[in-house]
Amino acid sequence: MNRGDSEAYLAKKQFYDTLLTIYGRKPVLEALQLSGIRVHRLHVAESNKPAGILTEIHQLASQHGAEICHHSRSALSRISKNSKQDQGVAVDLICPGFTTFDQFLDSADQPQSDLLALDGITNPQNLGMIIRSACAGNISGILLPAKGCAQIDPLVIKASAGTVFRAPIIRISGSLEDALGRFKQRGYAVVGLSSHAQRTLGDCPHGKQVFVLGNETKGVSKTVETQCDRWVKIPMNNGVESLNVAVTAALIAFRRH
Amino acid sequence: MNRGDSEAYLAKKQFYDTLLTIYGRKPVLEALQLSGIRVHRLHVAESNKPAGILTEIHQLASQHGAEICHHSRSALSRISKNSKQDQGVAVDLICPGFTTFDQFLDSADQPQSDLLALDGITNPQNLGMIIRSACAGNISGILLPAKGCAQIDPLVIKASAGTVFRAPIIRISGSLEDALGRFKQRGYAVVGLSSHAQRTLGDCPHGKQVFVLGNETKGVSKTVETQCDRWVKIPMNNGVESLNVAVTAALIAFRRH
Repeated sequence: MNRGDSEAYLAKKQFYDTLLTIYGRKPVLEALQLSGIRVHRLHVAESNKPAGILTEIHQLASQHGAEICHHSRSALSRISKNSKQDQGVAVDLICPGFTTFDQFLDSADQPQSDLLALDGITNPQNLGMIIRSACAGNISGILLPAKGCAQIDPLVIKASAGTVFRAPIIRISGSLEDALGRFKQRGYAVVGLSSHAQRTLGDCPHGKQVFVLGNETKGVSKTVETQCDRWVKIPMNNGVESLNVAVTAALIAFRRH
Repeated sequence: MNRGDSEAYLAKKQFYDTLLTIYGRKPVLEALQLSGIRVHRLHVAESNKPAGILTEIHQLASQHGAEICHHSRSALSRISKNSKQDQGVAVDLICPGFTTFDQFLDSADQPQSDLLALDGITNPQNLGMIIRSACAGNISGILLPAKGCAQIDPLVIKASAGTVFRAPIIRISGSLEDALGRFKQRGYAVVGLSSHAQRTLGDCPHGKQVFVLGNETKGVSKTVETQCDRWVKIPMNNGVESLNVAVTAALIAFRRH
């Protein structure tokens, strides 16, 4: 490829990395009904039989100015990556804040501030709230692994109050521990939260840090735990042992500068 | 009454004010299954026909050392205050952090720190999370009106991670605006949150303050709004307009001293 072609290719790839694909008739309809979304393409299977919900989906997609693409059943499966649940419909939403792990690390103007890493956040409500608080607060990236966490679906979008479409979400296709390892090589400190820690969140300096948020019940996983450089606690009264994970995320995102 | 009798009466009244009555078979069963609860009395209607769930409720109540009281159907209705939904069962849980508005204001050692006032928090999940964060953070009382808010039921208890039983909850039988008026007479400032405010939450001095948290959709009600002495905002990035109300509560509860 010549230089112009390479640049065009990269721009296109970066654009595709900002797309969030939602599938299934009701989820797609609900996504299209959200305010503030931008729709790239609606994908439908040629084999779909007429249905009221499909008419509604088509109308909404057109109102959003989306391109409407008809595919064979097998081609649609490759787009949705879930032929069992796509019901012949998928939609690509444009999320300008989305980036991939490699893009983020390769970017010349890497932010110097706090990141969040999500390690097994399985409750969609919590994921949505974390995204909302992180987007509103001082977090320059949310590391979201493809496996082990709730994925961004209409429930999460709703709980995020639509901030998913603006939030700086770094999608990780491999394992979170490997991603954290690479962040460490770039000078980031990986920080875990533990009620047994000596230092408090308030003592933490600001800088290149990744705060790990663990599963709602089990906490941080063993493999991710080994990547933590230090541990901090949030001091609590009345014998309370833990906070909701979305609340913890907010306290990190809004700690004083 | 002589002095001894008065003191005994007052002690008894104060104890009764710490009781939380839950009614309905499934809610009572779920409450009895929670860890860390203390049960005062199980109330059952004499007219109840044998049922598996009632046997289970009786067994759990006995394990908790609760007194089991049998009542006529009409007497039970007076205890549950909801004859349509009590299904012949109610339970009194002991919540040592509960107090009434009058008791709190009359108390000689009134705390000098922040309070929260809940104005139309209707989502049980949010109410539970607010209680959990307030209990863990630096909040000396949560004003919970009997009307307009979700009431404490098993859903709320679960979302609070059981902290309801330790949280400093001030129960208000009348209107919230009247209660706030009386707090103002005692030197408390009433503070509302608004994205249009000039001052930020971080600028707020610590002291006798009641922070008002409004309804999830409609915000602070008109009548309560008029009681606010000042307004503060939480500065947000990326054009985010608001935070989840439970997150806002946590940011108030954990702001730096």
